[in-house]
Amino acid sequence: MLAKSLGVHRNTVVAAYEELVTQGWLVTHPAQGTFVANDLPAELISALASSKPPGDKRDGAFATIYVTDGTADARLIPHAELGRAFRHALAAPAFLAGGGYGNPQGSSVLRGALAEYLAINRGVAASKEEILVTRGSQMALYVAGRALLSAGDAIAVEDPGYPLAWSAFKAAGTHLVGIPVDEHGIVVERLAEAAANLPNLKAVYVTPHHQYPTTVTMSSERRAALLALCLQRGLTIVEDDYDHEFHFDGQPVLPLAGQYGGKVNVVYIGSLSKLLSPGLRLGYVVCRSSPQMQAMVESCSIIDRQGDVPVEHAVATLVADGDLRRHTLKARLIYRARRSLLAQEIRGALGPRVEFDLPSGGLALWLRLGGADDRLWAKRAKGIGLSIAEGSRCFIHPDSAANAFRFGFASLDEAEIRRATKLLAASQPQDK
Amino acid sequence: MLAKSLGVHRNTVVAAYEELVTQGWLVTHPAQGTFVANDLPAELISALASSKPPGDKRDGAFATIYVTDGTADARLIPHAELGRAFRHALAAPAFLAGGGYGNPQGSSVLRGALAEYLAINRGVAASKEEILVTRGSQMALYVAGRALLSAGDAIAVEDPGYPLAWSAFKAAGTHLVGIPVDEHGIVVERLAEAAANLPNLKAVYVTPHHQYPTTVTMSSERRAALLALCLQRGLTIVEDDYDHEFHFDGQPVLPLAGQYGGKVNVVYIGSLSKLLSPGLRLGYVVCRSSPQMQAMVESCSIIDRQGDVPVEHAVATLVADGDLRRHTLKARLIYRARRSLLAQEIRGALGPRVEFDLPSGGLALWLRLGGADDRLWAKRAKGIGLSIAEGSRCFIHPDSAANAFRFGFASLDEAEIRRATKLLAASQPQDK
Repeated sequence: MLAKSLGVHRNTVVAAYEELVTQGWLVTHPAQGTFVANDLPAELISALASSKPPGDKRDGAFATIYVTDGTADARLIPHAELGRAFRHALAAPAFLAGGGYGNPQGSSVLRGALAEYLAINRGVAASKEEILVTRGSQMALYVAGRALLSAGDAIAVEDPGYPLAWSAFKAAGTHLVGIPVDEHGIVVERLAEAAANLPNLKAVYVTPHHQYPTTVTMSSERRAALLALCLQRGLTIVEDDYDHEFHFDGQPVLPLAGQYGGKVNVVYIGSLSKLLSPGLRLGYVVCRSSPQMQAMVESCSIIDRQGDVPVEHAVATLVADGDLRRHTLKARLIYRARRSLLAQEIRGALGPRVEFDLPSGGLALWLRLGGADDRLWAKRAKGIGLSIAEGSRCFIHPDSAANAFRFGFASLDEAEIRRATKLLAASQPQDK
Repeated sequence: MLAKSLGVHRNTVVAAYEELVTQGWLVTHPAQGTFVANDLPAELISALASSKPPGDKRDGAFATIYVTDGTADARLIPHAELGRAFRHALAAPAFLAGGGYGNPQGSSVLRGALAEYLAINRGVAASKEEILVTRGSQMALYVAGRALLSAGDAIAVEDPGYPLAWSAFKAAGTHLVGIPVDEHGIVVERLAEAAANLPNLKAVYVTPHHQYPTTVTMSSERRAALLALCLQRGLTIVEDDYDHEFHFDGQPVLPLAGQYGGKVNVVYIGSLSKLLSPGLRLGYVVCRSSPQMQAMVESCSIIDRQGDVPVEHAVATLVADGDLRRHTLKARLIYRARRSLLAQEIRGALGPRVEFDLPSGGLALWLRLGGADDRLWAKRAKGIGLSIAEGSRCFIHPDSAANAFRFGFASLDEAEIRRATKLLAASQPQDK
């Protein structure tokens, strides 16, 4: 009834009730109903009383701002088109026929759309048979780790790097070998030393376009050196190009997977979740080795049998109709402006204490905190309504870590960026 | 243009073109277009010429009928409601806020809806915190295997049983111990012998409601004996209740997970894909052990970070609004009629050669082939347009297998059931 009288969806009302119960304003008595709590939480009332005036609701005591590690803004995606495409997909023969089973490698129509998209937009030529659709890029990393590596093998990874990729590789029973990163990307000489010393080193995982977490773009010299080394040593490259489209200065750098054809085995991983929202699960792997592709498909089918057919078809429609490209062009302009705004706000609010290099692409700034403890800082920030992940989690040995934050700017609008920066400045730890 | 002039979706036209290319009627010349093939496939023309008259298009030479192992009919699901719920979910704060990240345990709103649904419909009392949402029940099996068992542990499984569950457990490095099944379900005395002899036996995987593949419902004596043995030996029960709602004769038997509370550790697995369509990926696990639940959530986040938020919210709306319950009631009547029809058609077309017991629930018949080779039979069936999986894949040692088919009736309409039965009869191997 409340939903009807407010003209909102039932779930919205349910969610609002749940939040009020969680916060302590309401209590639920089974089989009686939901009532205003007798015992209202005193600290919340005093916090409310001292909070900012109404009007800017994000200034309220409870509207925690979530700083991501660099996700897209789901508020910008083409909702109407996606909703319509999903409705069509539910009525499509591919979903209705054959008992509803799908291909564990992913819908043919989505793999076809991706093949065309990758060839045109990224110079990566791959047939449908060389593309595997996964739920998100996390599953791509997980099945690639299992297909490329055996228990006891080692894989070189960037350090600092992407901890969720490490977890995926470790789950396959492999050892991680951390290789340092400088302003040109992974330090290939150090990788060469590791390859010379470790006979069980089979692969290297890199994020060359916008290194995770430092945002550095790998230089062309470094790319050439990396490819030459991997060719010489027979190392497979796992290339994670998670936010390819969001390059702001100059042309995007083309993937390693596109340049050297069959000479080096480059397994290429991408994500549609990064273009749309992490809540929409679609990633993919390009792999030219047919036995490795077979192993990955089998791994996928053991883990999850097949993907979600309507979601795959709906997104295929977005790709084929050009809606994804139009969305990306629009979002890129917005994200570029947010990058500039965040850089300006950080400089203004934190001055020389916090250093960063303006990245030529990607959806985050890598803030070096000049010795301030990121764990302490993140904890203090949380206390005043700012959620941000500690940068030290991106180091293999967090205790030896440079203190840093990876501050995603794309998912926040202008007001949120301003507010988040203020909260970050307000929560900085005192000098010792 | 063709899509527009026919008034169909672009993907439909693309799919039609693809199929015509695959069949050899059309050829694609890159950068020129698609043309009628010069070299039309002769065998297809002759097959067409000799096929049934138009009108019954499923009688055509190419309309292979897919017999599943017992999936729902995606043509019956509430498409309009689901499409609308998905569109709402795309605009919901849970999807738009917080950078789009979701909870790796699954959306709170879906876990809440499931908790209520399981309590009311199945007598399984579980809090939201005791429920994990997975993509399909396959992922539920995969993460349960990893969380409950260590490499080198053994798990007892029904033999014949569900081979995809075996793959999931084996991926965790465990050993399978096959336990026979009779007309009352798993033979508990044989499980007791295994437990006495194998100190590394930690768990047993069962499908008590409608045993996979034999469709047998476990008797109450057997249930009591199983629970007593597992309590005595400290075995965890993994209960897969994959098609609970589709019980036709009498009341559904309540899950083991509901009857014995905290005494035996019963990890309960269910699937929403079985209620709707395997192309829609949603399964879940109920687990009362908090450390085991934590391990499963962590495993999920390494494999796939989180679920698809709009899909989870859309289906939660279907559950909360009663659409899922209404759909289930409607589908149950239809499936019941299809069960009777298939039984009658099999008796008519195959007579005493093929034996089966009419199951009290589930979406398949288990056909025993009286010594005929199911692999040969399936191959011959495929040649005349009937796809059905060999029953011997459900045995741990396929060579010692009783020859059988698991024939899913729910995903086929009346005409398809009649046609499939005719094709099955027409393809039976000759007696030696």
